[in-house]
Amino acid sequence: MARPKLEFWFEFASTYSYLSAMRLPSMAQAAGVDVVWRPFLLGPIFNSQGWKTSPFNIYQAKGNYMWRDMARRAERFGLSVEKPDPFPQNSLLAARVAQAAPEGAQKVAFCQNVYLMEFSEGQDISDPEVIAACVELAKLPEGIIEAAQSDENKHALRLSTEEAGRRGIFGAPNFVVGEELFWGDDRLEEALEWAVRDG
Amino acid sequence: MARPKLEFWFEFASTYSYLSAMRLPSMAQAAGVDVVWRPFLLGPIFNSQGWKTSPFNIYQAKGNYMWRDMARRAERFGLSVEKPDPFPQNSLLAARVAQAAPEGAQKVAFCQNVYLMEFSEGQDISDPEVIAACVELAKLPEGIIEAAQSDENKHALRLSTEEAGRRGIFGAPNFVVGEELFWGDDRLEEALEWAVRDG
Repeated sequence: MARPKLEFWFEFASTYSYLSAMRLPSMAQAAGVDVVWRPFLLGPIFNSQGWKTSPFNIYQAKGNYMWRDMARRAERFGLSVEKPDPFPQNSLLAARVAQAAPEGAQKVAFCQNVYLMEFSEGQDISDPEVIAACVELAKLPEGIIEAAQSDENKHALRLSTEEAGRRGIFGAPNFVVGEELFWGDDRLEEALEWAVRDG
Repeated sequence: MARPKLEFWFEFASTYSYLSAMRLPSMAQAAGVDVVWRPFLLGPIFNSQGWKTSPFNIYQAKGNYMWRDMARRAERFGLSVEKPDPFPQNSLLAARVAQAAPEGAQKVAFCQNVYLMEFSEGQDISDPEVIAACVELAKLPEGIIEAAQSDENKHALRLSTEEAGRRGIFGAPNFVVGEELFWGDDRLEEALEWAVRDG
């Protein structure tokens, strides 16, 4: 029997995606679920809803709550959380590198490095030197940053973002099992259960 | 030592408030937490964000997701869920009656009856006959509907809604422990833990 599978759709600028990116690998392994890491960009999706920035900036009470909720949940998961400046960060380069990276432990390590730099270290992930450091720490192949900036890879990321829209995605993070969409870090456990039972 | 206390801030038109209203009494009792039921109106809060209807109607992908998520969660909790017509329902009369009701088992029963009529039976909770039936089933004192329509009680509900805004509330349901705000049915367990530990 094939192992259950789950797609993790994430945006590097997304706070709750950070929590999921850090929690998912060990939890999926324990559950026996294979994960495909699917970077995409929320910008075009938010734009189509008329938002020019994060809804956490547009709706102040919601934003205040989110940072408090993040602090509580991060503590529960043994993570630290800091608000990067600016928020949200420009995640384009990071997403392109993740798009270019082959599936596997190095890609996962790269994504986790980016999230830690951004939300734990407070570094600017639009800085090519920060991304280069994440690539090196993750032992991704040399030249991946150049490959990430190729027209072909830029196009692939655009297609992923369009696919996200078609799948009904409107925020991040998401867990997709077959046609079933689970939105939010707080649905991670439920999505893994679903994958094991029905995936 | 005083028993831990939690305030449940709910809106009768809110789908996820239905799940919490049905789950909360038994879970709070098991945790040894006293609950104060605080009805309020989301309308004025949404209005101040520029929304003339539910965000689940304004943002279609989010709305589609919410109904699917509600169906999954309701099934998990042994509840049935139907989309009332119209959605959202006009919850003003129900909220006024809940505001007028003294704290206790009859108020809780009234609130649960309203939610079941609305989201399980698909009835219109702006219909005074539906509300009268909920009052009778809950054995609330005769004349409460008249008291609910008094200027004093209307004013009390307006004050509650203003208090919700001051507490940083921007959606429903909410659980408030001291100064700590928890938003969403999926934070119910965490809020109860918080009340027991720090309340």
